Amino acid sequence: MKFTRFQTDNEVSAGVLEGSRVKQIKGDIFSDWEYTGRVYETNKVKLLAPLAPNQIIGIGANFVTKADELPDSLPEIPVFFFKPSSSVIGPDENIMIPDEIDSVKFESELAVVIGKEAKNVSEEDILDYVFGYTVGNDVTAPQYFHEAGHWTVGKSFDTFTPLGPVIETKLDPFNINVEARLNEEEKQNSPTSLMIVPIREMISYLTKVMTLKPGDVILTGSPIGAEMVGAGDVIECEIKEIGTLKNTFAAVGEGVGVS
Amino acid sequence: MKFTRFQTDNEVSAGVLEGSRVKQIKGDIFSDWEYTGRVYETNKVKLLAPLAPNQIIGIGANFVTKADELPDSLPEIPVFFFKPSSSVIGPDENIMIPDEIDSVKFESELAVVIGKEAKNVSEEDILDYVFGYTVGNDVTAPQYFHEAGHWTVGKSFDTFTPLGPVIETKLDPFNINVEARLNEEEKQNSPTSLMIVPIREMISYLTKVMTLKPGDVILTGSPIGAEMVGAGDVIECEIKEIGTLKNTFAAVGEGVGVS
Repeated sequence: MKFTRFQTDNEVSAGVLEGSRVKQIKGDIFSDWEYTGRVYETNKVKLLAPLAPNQIIGIGANFVTKADELPDSLPEIPVFFFKPSSSVIGPDENIMIPDEIDSVKFESELAVVIGKEAKNVSEEDILDYVFGYTVGNDVTAPQYFHEAGHWTVGKSFDTFTPLGPVIETKLDPFNINVEARLNEEEKQNSPTSLMIVPIREMISYLTKVMTLKPGDVILTGSPIGAEMVGAGDVIECEIKEIGTLKNTFAAVGEGVGVS
Repeated sequence: MKFTRFQTDNEVSAGVLEGSRVKQIKGDIFSDWEYTGRVYETNKVKLLAPLAPNQIIGIGANFVTKADELPDSLPEIPVFFFKPSSSVIGPDENIMIPDEIDSVKFESELAVVIGKEAKNVSEEDILDYVFGYTVGNDVTAPQYFHEAGHWTVGKSFDTFTPLGPVIETKLDPFNINVEARLNEEEKQNSPTSLMIVPIREMISYLTKVMTLKPGDVILTGSPIGAEMVGAGDVIECEIKEIGTLKNTFAAVGEGVGVS
């Protein structure tokens, strides 16, 4: 089942995508919802990010190039970071490059959407707490990384977390490829088996630190091949079983700096 | 005006604290609210964290010991970090020390509560977007800091962000001291004038990166004097004009680790 959110005139709705049509629903996708009976052609509405996340958690540098590069043991402390929910945009919206720089990095990722409150959940059981999966682009401005290793500013700009086009609830996350095309040229294409910290271990670890909540989104890391890009470039992040998340980079006229 | 949240039987309410009584209110403290007419003695209810934050943003290492140590220029990229909203607890609740370690650090801080959506706001105008101020304890387990500088895991454990006892809307944040007493002994006591990145500059900078929302909480850094503590220790974080936030450290029986 493919959940989405969409805009008609001035109304924002949730819906279920079926082919070229979206069936409007009401309620909470994580608990109780029902069809309203209204159906729209997708080309007549504006698709939004498929959810407004509660929180967004990412993992750093989580892919190797080939299976024989996978480490024998997992890192003791994985590199996690938060991105603000204010950084989320949907399909076809522009990613705004901050004024003082002229390039940022795209990172195509599998995004896991948590559906049930999860605390101290084992690796075996953790997928029971997953509602579904979408595609994320963890846009990053490494120019704003702090020299002591803190990534917060460089990952937090408005528009830096495109999500979409849908949340797919039926997906085998271990049999998919995470892809990206820059201006129609393939730049990333790796199976999730090349993750250093695999999905179950990643989410289970997080639940041993913090209580995950419905609507939390976990960005599971980006394959080798991400690049710096500039205004006018078009990025398509894709997981074939979910869909394609296409956004264009644009310049913004606002600066940042402590004066 | 001192806003709080409190629990009676199984109901959670917002309220306004006046002396030893709390006047129940309904509605959204950031927009429309009204008194319900019910009044409770504070010693008959359980005070909670005064808000459920939208997001929590902290700043690292932001105090010097003496005014003559303040740098001539502000850091180009301040060290910001996020803490999950799941880490919030209220006054008198226990701070749980993760199983695999036996000590954590307290950090008494002035916590700024944003009241209005804020994007690209100047230093001059930024305080118009502040709803009020509370006391925060940015509990930290440096044992879980990643060697490359990432603090996320070490700051994200459940119970690691006590907030309270109230949000004070009438406060001059430039004329207060941030204090902490460990087992009744003073450990921290510094005026906010010893902040390296001052409050206006800090929040204005953030609005040039991301859109701040009502309910966002900014932890403005902790004075010199924070220490590692263990189970049984009692920490009182205090800003006299707001109140005292008292919590006890306790051991928890759950481990964390990527297996």
